Amino acid sequence: MTSQIYRLLEDYMLSCMGDSAHDKEHIYRVLYSALEIAEEEEQEVDFDVLICACLLHDVGRREQFEDPSLCHARVGAEKAYRFLVEQGFEEEFAARVRHCVLTHRYRNNHEPETLEARILFDADKLDVTGTIGIARTLFYKGRVSEPLYTVDEQGRVQDGSGDTEPSFLKEYKYKLENIYSHFYTKKGAEMARARRQAAESYYRSLLEEVRPLYEKGRQALAGRVTDSAE
Amino acid sequence: MTSQIYRLLEDYMLSCMGDSAHDKEHIYRVLYSALEIAEEEEQEVDFDVLICACLLHDVGRREQFEDPSLCHARVGAEKAYRFLVEQGFEEEFAARVRHCVLTHRYRNNHEPETLEARILFDADKLDVTGTIGIARTLFYKGRVSEPLYTVDEQGRVQDGSGDTEPSFLKEYKYKLENIYSHFYTKKGAEMARARRQAAESYYRSLLEEVRPLYEKGRQALAGRVTDSAE
Repeated sequence: MTSQIYRLLEDYMLSCMGDSAHDKEHIYRVLYSALEIAEEEEQEVDFDVLICACLLHDVGRREQFEDPSLCHARVGAEKAYRFLVEQGFEEEFAARVRHCVLTHRYRNNHEPETLEARILFDADKLDVTGTIGIARTLFYKGRVSEPLYTVDEQGRVQDGSGDTEPSFLKEYKYKLENIYSHFYTKKGAEMARARRQAAESYYRSLLEEVRPLYEKGRQALAGRVTDSAE
Repeated sequence: MTSQIYRLLEDYMLSCMGDSAHDKEHIYRVLYSALEIAEEEEQEVDFDVLICACLLHDVGRREQFEDPSLCHARVGAEKAYRFLVEQGFEEEFAARVRHCVLTHRYRNNHEPETLEARILFDADKLDVTGTIGIARTLFYKGRVSEPLYTVDEQGRVQDGSGDTEPSFLKEYKYKLENIYSHFYTKKGAEMARARRQAAESYYRSLLEEVRPLYEKGRQALAGRVTDSAE
């Protein structure tokens, strides 16, 4: 790929982000992870398709944000395809990129069928592992004003595993904790494994900080707040 | 304190939070930490003043959020004082609570002069230590759309220490990392120390994840994107 084409794709990616341009580092992390995975692949990788798909994989994000019934992978796949064809890329190339973008989403119905699509899938999933996954989830929870954890009627901090209402700890137990299996590529699985301990350690430390604090605090409070004779 | 009065104060605190009611767990953590600190104090603590000040310490938050030139500690101190006097609390009690609220803020010009004010100060500061401090900072950065880290012109991830633009890593280096000294109470300092390692470990793991990724990624990209003969 020429640097001219790279800049064209990068500029289009940035223009699609609008207000959420701070998320652009996610795109570079996915691109860099994909390249790291691709370098270790035994089969031949089409790097032009891969780089293009990485840069454009989230161009449908804004549409999904504005209308949550839309799937950013579907919207993004069509946007990327149209953009590439309009810019004079070959239809076959544009279609291969479209397949990668359509199938990159964790938990949707479209399986990645090509090597480049599998590498993008793994690279995007890697960005939910480790401390970076923790950070992105906390960013998101802050943005949508969801709590860190929930507290039951007795005032005990819940560990997330039985939560019905959204919280960071629920997201950890239902998504982040289980993200380490089912990578398509060997290198992707290996990179995820190396990050796992740091995420687990964060979750554990957080619970260790707040649970005893609430327990002792509620006991101490019970000793200081007495029932009034109403 | 009677449970009737506790509920009155709690209800007022919740009513002041409005949309940001998810922040209420910060109030309970501060209250519980303050009680834990107070139980170990040798001098006599006025628990009514302390509990009241903990519950009301952030009632000026919304005003500061809507007009950042306002200081939530100043606004909150006056709001708390007026509320307490209106509710029939003694003027002297209300004034002691006002002093605690006014001086609780990390880095303002008012020094906490009473034992209860020092305990509230430490308890509030404790909520910036450890993994809870990391989580609250990431929540906030997500809410105001600031990035996790910055990248220099050569594409290298900065560790936060020389950053001029806001980022999570800058906040870590300038605030979170240095929060562990200058506690007023022995117990507060001890609780902070116990949490320090988890925060440092999170920061270190995050840098260890992203820095080599960008380094290898940029190298790999340079091998795949060639200068076009423009």
